[in-house]
Order: sequence, then C-alpha cells, then structure tokens
Amino acid sequence: MKILLVGALGTVGRAVAAELGSRHEIVVAGRKGADLPLDLADPASLRAAFQRLGTVDAIVSAAGQVGWAPLLELTDEQWRFSLAHKLMGQVNLALIGQAHLRDGGSITLTSGVLNHDPVAYGAAASLANGGIEGFVRAASVELPRGLRINAVSPGVLVESMEDLGAFFRGFQPVPGARVALGYARSVEGGESGKVYAVH
Amino acid sequence: MKILLVGALGTVGRAVAAELGSRHEIVVAGRKGADLPLDLADPASLRAAFQRLGTVDAIVSAAGQVGWAPLLELTDEQWRFSLAHKLMGQVNLALIGQAHLRDGGSITLTSGVLNHDPVAYGAAASLANGGIEGFVRAASVELPRGLRINAVSPGVLVESMEDLGAFFRGFQPVPGARVALGYARSVEGGESGKVYAVH
Repeated sequence: MKILLVGALGTVGRAVAAELGSRHEIVVAGRKGADLPLDLADPASLRAAFQRLGTVDAIVSAAGQVGWAPLLELTDEQWRFSLAHKLMGQVNLALIGQAHLRDGGSITLTSGVLNHDPVAYGAAASLANGGIEGFVRAASVELPRGLRINAVSPGVLVESMEDLGAFFRGFQPVPGARVALGYARSVEGGESGKVYAVH
Repeated sequence: MKILLVGALGTVGRAVAAELGSRHEIVVAGRKGADLPLDLADPASLRAAFQRLGTVDAIVSAAGQVGWAPLLELTDEQWRFSLAHKLMGQVNLALIGQAHLRDGGSITLTSGVLNHDPVAYGAAASLANGGIEGFVRAASVELPRGLRINAVSPGVLVESMEDLGAFFRGFQPVPGARVALGYARSVEGGESGKVYAVH
C-alpha cells in the first residue's frame, strides 16, 4: 500500500512509521522535515498536497497539536489553535483526502485517552479527542466508495513519560510500538467507525 | 435555586423549563424572546449577560445549533457555525459563567445521541456532541470552589419527530419530559463529569 502519514515526526508518528513502513510505502507529510509539506490548519495547503500526491491507499494522521494549560487559563488563542489543528485539521484532512483515496481505502485519525480519562491542563485535548471520535463514527456512515474511517486513541506513551509523566501520574504508559498496532488494525483491517483504544 | 437557562425556547429547552421551573426560579437567556439577551457564539455578549445577571446557583444550556448536511456537502461556514454555537458556544458559557456561580453551583451542557449513534447529515452534530462530552469530563477535574459540570445527551425527542423523523428512522423517540429529568439530575444531584444519556 501507499500510505500518507501526517505527523510522522511526533512520538506516535515515529512508531506508526516503523510499524507500517516495514511492509508499505510511506509518504511523510507535515510542516517540517517531510516529503510532502502541508499544514493541517490550512485547508488550501491540504488541497495542494493531495494534488501533488495523487491517489493513495490510506491516509493516517498521527498529528494534532493542542493548547495545554489550566482550564481557566486556556486563552482564546489556545482554544482556536487546538480546534484548528487536532480537531478541524484532522477533519479537513479526512474530508479533502477522501477524494484522493482508491475505492475501499482508509482514513485513520488520532484521538487520545484524555477524552474519557481527563487530567489537569488537558481540557482542549479532551474536547478535541471527543470531537474526533464523534466525527469518525459519523463519517463512517456517509463516506462513499467503500472508504473506511477509524480513530486510534493512544494512552500516554512510554517514550513521552520524561516530558509528560508529571501530568499523567497513575496512568499506565503504553509503548509506542503497541500504540502503532492500533493504526495497523485500522489500515489493514476491515472495520469502519471504530475507535481503537490503546491505553 | 436561581437557574440560568440558555435555549429555553427550543424543544429540549421548553421541557427543561417546565421541569425545573416547577420548583426553581428560571432566568431565560437566548437570542430571541429571552429575559436576558445573549448570543452563545459571541463571548462578549456572554460576559455582558453575566455582568447583568449577577450570581446564580446553576447554569443550564439546552442550546446549540449545528449545521446539517450530507458529510461531503457540509460547507466551511456550516462547520464554523457548528463549532461557534454548539461546541465553543457552550464551552465559553461554562468558562465565562463559572465565575458567576455560587460555591458548589453547577453547569449542565447538552450533547446528544449522535455522538455514539450517528445518522446521515449529522457529522457536525456528532463532532460537537463528542467534543462537549470530552470537555465536560475534563472541566470536572479542574473547576474550583466545588463547582460541578455535566452534560445531558438527549435522544431524538417525541416532540421533534414530525420535523426530524426522516433522519432518525429506527431510533426510539424520547419524550421531552423524560429528557428534562437528565437536566434535573445534573442540577439537583451531586455528581460531576457525568454524561446523562436519555436515549
């Protein structure tokens, strides 16, 4: 398969690239260091990237930055940023990208454990994760041509604990390689409208 | 209790006003026909409304319009509208309103059955509902002063079936009076971070 991977340089994205890259052709897209430059928050850049790319078998997003601050200190700009990147950035990737998938191709987006298991500072992440999961279920009943769409909800990664451990006390960290299996299940399985929780 | 009710003129809102108004003082807020004018999509109008209102015991939103169209025909403007009203409109109501609640007061927002049980045309609603549920869980772990926050997830109302029935074939319609009990449980109960599904 030819797979477009957005966010391949993040902690989740590196693990997904290792898992799927072992048996598929990966085109790495993103803002920096990517084969294919695009900015999730800019629909015009998504359209341009897909024009350049042509048809693929799968679109995978391991991207999606969000603002991170105490609930009552999240600024309007942090909310706007979170909605433009992790929430509508991924939604626009799906809606623009679906036209460039072969029949029966798949879209895999990223939500996260904070939808159901919140932590302080994470309200924008929780909202974006919940929105992505609702969107994926809804899109699965309307996508044409046998296209599939799922989300993976990663827990906090073992590889992120040095940076994020203080925010996730009591959470069982998950190895990136195990999180990557959720993406493989979405891309290489047959289900649609699912959320693969790897917590 | 003195309860601010946003969206009291909608189908859900009328049922909530009937249930809670039988034993509490309700201040009706909204864009039209309201005691207290406000526009959920305009944070400045929320701030002005709370300045005028003073302190309340509970904030209830039965509001939240969204765009409604086939997945691939939802316009950028419909997505923007949905995020500004049902999603961030309710989030801003909570974040601005919490400062005007008495200690131990409550916030109740509205999500909906489409988060988990999607229908065609409803992708923006599903996304907004999922986002609200994630937000409510997250906000519950950070709100100060014993403030509580919950969501009610109504199914399709019996009273809406004439307008919406064609979109909700196979769904069991729920009487507005039963949906209103979810709001009573949130306002008059003791829980926080819950989603009361009335499907």
